[in-house]
Amino acid sequence: MADPSTSPPLTRASVAAARELIKPFVHRTPVITSTSLSALASGTDAGADAGKANPKLRLWFKCENFQKVGAFKARGAFHAIERLKQEPGWLEGGGPEKGVVTHSSGNHAQALSLAARANGIPAHIVMPRISAPPKIAATKGYGARVIFSGSTSVEREAATAQVVEDTGARLVPPYDHPDIILGQGTLGLEFQEQVEELMMAAEEEEEEDGKEEGAGKKKKAGSRRGLDAIIAPCGGGGMLSGVALSCEGTGIRVFGSEPSFQGADDAKRGYESGTRVEAVSSLTVADGLRTPLGRIPWSVIYERRLVSGFYSVSEADIIRALRLAYERLKVVVEPSSAVPLAVALYNEDFRAMVEREAGEDGWDVGIVFSGGNVSLEALGKLFSESPEMAK
Amino acid sequence: MADPSTSPPLTRASVAAARELIKPFVHRTPVITSTSLSALASGTDAGADAGKANPKLRLWFKCENFQKVGAFKARGAFHAIERLKQEPGWLEGGGPEKGVVTHSSGNHAQALSLAARANGIPAHIVMPRISAPPKIAATKGYGARVIFSGSTSVEREAATAQVVEDTGARLVPPYDHPDIILGQGTLGLEFQEQVEELMMAAEEEEEEDGKEEGAGKKKKAGSRRGLDAIIAPCGGGGMLSGVALSCEGTGIRVFGSEPSFQGADDAKRGYESGTRVEAVSSLTVADGLRTPLGRIPWSVIYERRLVSGFYSVSEADIIRALRLAYERLKVVVEPSSAVPLAVALYNEDFRAMVEREAGEDGWDVGIVFSGGNVSLEALGKLFSESPEMAK
Repeated sequence: MADPSTSPPLTRASVAAARELIKPFVHRTPVITSTSLSALASGTDAGADAGKANPKLRLWFKCENFQKVGAFKARGAFHAIERLKQEPGWLEGGGPEKGVVTHSSGNHAQALSLAARANGIPAHIVMPRISAPPKIAATKGYGARVIFSGSTSVEREAATAQVVEDTGARLVPPYDHPDIILGQGTLGLEFQEQVEELMMAAEEEEEEDGKEEGAGKKKKAGSRRGLDAIIAPCGGGGMLSGVALSCEGTGIRVFGSEPSFQGADDAKRGYESGTRVEAVSSLTVADGLRTPLGRIPWSVIYERRLVSGFYSVSEADIIRALRLAYERLKVVVEPSSAVPLAVALYNEDFRAMVEREAGEDGWDVGIVFSGGNVSLEALGKLFSESPEMAK
Repeated sequence: MADPSTSPPLTRASVAAARELIKPFVHRTPVITSTSLSALASGTDAGADAGKANPKLRLWFKCENFQKVGAFKARGAFHAIERLKQEPGWLEGGGPEKGVVTHSSGNHAQALSLAARANGIPAHIVMPRISAPPKIAATKGYGARVIFSGSTSVEREAATAQVVEDTGARLVPPYDHPDIILGQGTLGLEFQEQVEELMMAAEEEEEEDGKEEGAGKKKKAGSRRGLDAIIAPCGGGGMLSGVALSCEGTGIRVFGSEPSFQGADDAKRGYESGTRVEAVSSLTVADGLRTPLGRIPWSVIYERRLVSGFYSVSEADIIRALRLAYERLKVVVEPSSAVPLAVALYNEDFRAMVEREAGEDGWDVGIVFSGGNVSLEALGKLFSESPEMAK
């Protein structure tokens, strides 16, 4: 990883520069909508309950499940390597032969392996010996060298340090680095642009037809075109802080979302108490969000107040939202991706806030679907244990 | 349904006219690709087995799982109603008040209900009393009146005839009608157009970069741009025959695909023997393809030879292909949609034919993902019973 002191400043312009750097390597993933989910979120589907918030929400989904390696992590990994290539002396010092290293058993390991392979440099991935065989196979499938370690963080870090000593490889951490944050933030810039394009296309179509068509398509009176808010999942916070940077100065509010189970809402607790929570031990179904918030993400999210607030949801609500993503949107997403959708649909604090702030016009809310890497066996179990609800 | 004698001729031009009629009401669903699935289909992923065919296949997927009501059936249903509206006397004779009727418990019922509601006319849907409650709820959710009947086709037809007598509603059959065939065929026109657009965009990008990038992107020497073939699933044959019409005169070959289980490959057997098979009784996992081929589809597919051949696949291969759609493409499709993908990946006759016909250049093959309506419980069961394979 490039020395953080040489990283560009954490600004919206730096996210735009990161986007130019990684453009040839990552997908501009699609943004999708659903009339039925927007209706459901607006409480007009099943009818509003007395005493419950009844906000107007038009939902937009950024599908990073369709990203390379099936998750937004490809953005940060490709950016980290592009930045390394720009670092004075890295090339001359034999950097490309020494390669990169990280410890991870998840999407970041696969993303770094792919980015390294695309650049013809070796990737060393430290994984706990007890990792699931399909995850090990997938990482090896991207051409990485897998080094096994014990399961504690001390053992993993020791094994990683050993790899650095043996090979001279550069460490690429999963989220707590400016280059990773700027890379992940590129999804936020795309999201803003794509929603504006889609809104413009819909308006042109309406003008061509010379009539308004159907309900729920009313334009916001006198307000600008585009998103009003984005809700992103928050684990280590690399992506959430990057998205927050991508929205700086635009007026788009960014919210973090977390599972509440067994204290996985560490970022929310830290944000509200003013002190970062440094350890989490939760077995939430949203397994991408079991990580505590990193130090640099915290500085963006809390100290610079670029995130407007956090909302947490129960395991049951995450599974309900996950089910809707499959049934209504027909997309394969991992449980972590269902967390921001669950906030929009079921978190009464969030919904009351939108009703209060947005009024009659409602809000266009962007939901980040962070990834789609899920074991079909685990998924099968999840859905057969939570019986289908009447629609 | 409009009197078939008043229907436009079954030609590519009529499919184009149908497309104009339904454009405001249906989605132009996306076409997606996957480097890893194309590599797998080309036998370069796991390495070619000795004695096995090793064709070059570049796969393109038309995602009708993202269509309204989650399946291509919306196209035929909206077209049927637009054609009714054009029928002399229908409007004046109180047609819109009398509405439409069909017997179906699947995607066609929901599609017709939606199309009727969008036009403000009543839909009467005859369903077996034993239909799954979520299917009944979904159909009612689209505003249809559901009439229960016994389960045999005699009982269902009697109930339907009774509805026609009571209400004067028009019968809209699921596939054996020119207007339905022309409506479904519109997906074929879009598919051709979209693949050409995507190929053109890729070529422009390569020219901008001023270099060839990565492997497997070689252009076909001297051949035209676009699809070489389309594989579509075949149940009643309304969609397959429509797609075949959309390709007439283009040089694109159209193939039908079916499950082989318990004789569900009725169209294949009929096509090869020269006599249409009129009854099927199979419990294949591809439940949308348990229907025998209709009379009018047969005339297009067999008598006019607009389909070049049929291929069938085992239940195990369908589930393997289904798993890949979820794992690699991250899309929710129903088992019937995995049948054409299973042909491309696992049917040795098909693969040997492509190797023989396409040679070094290979083929660009379009795969029709017909729909995404699947019970998550059934899916969960399917995936937990077929353990994950090593990649």
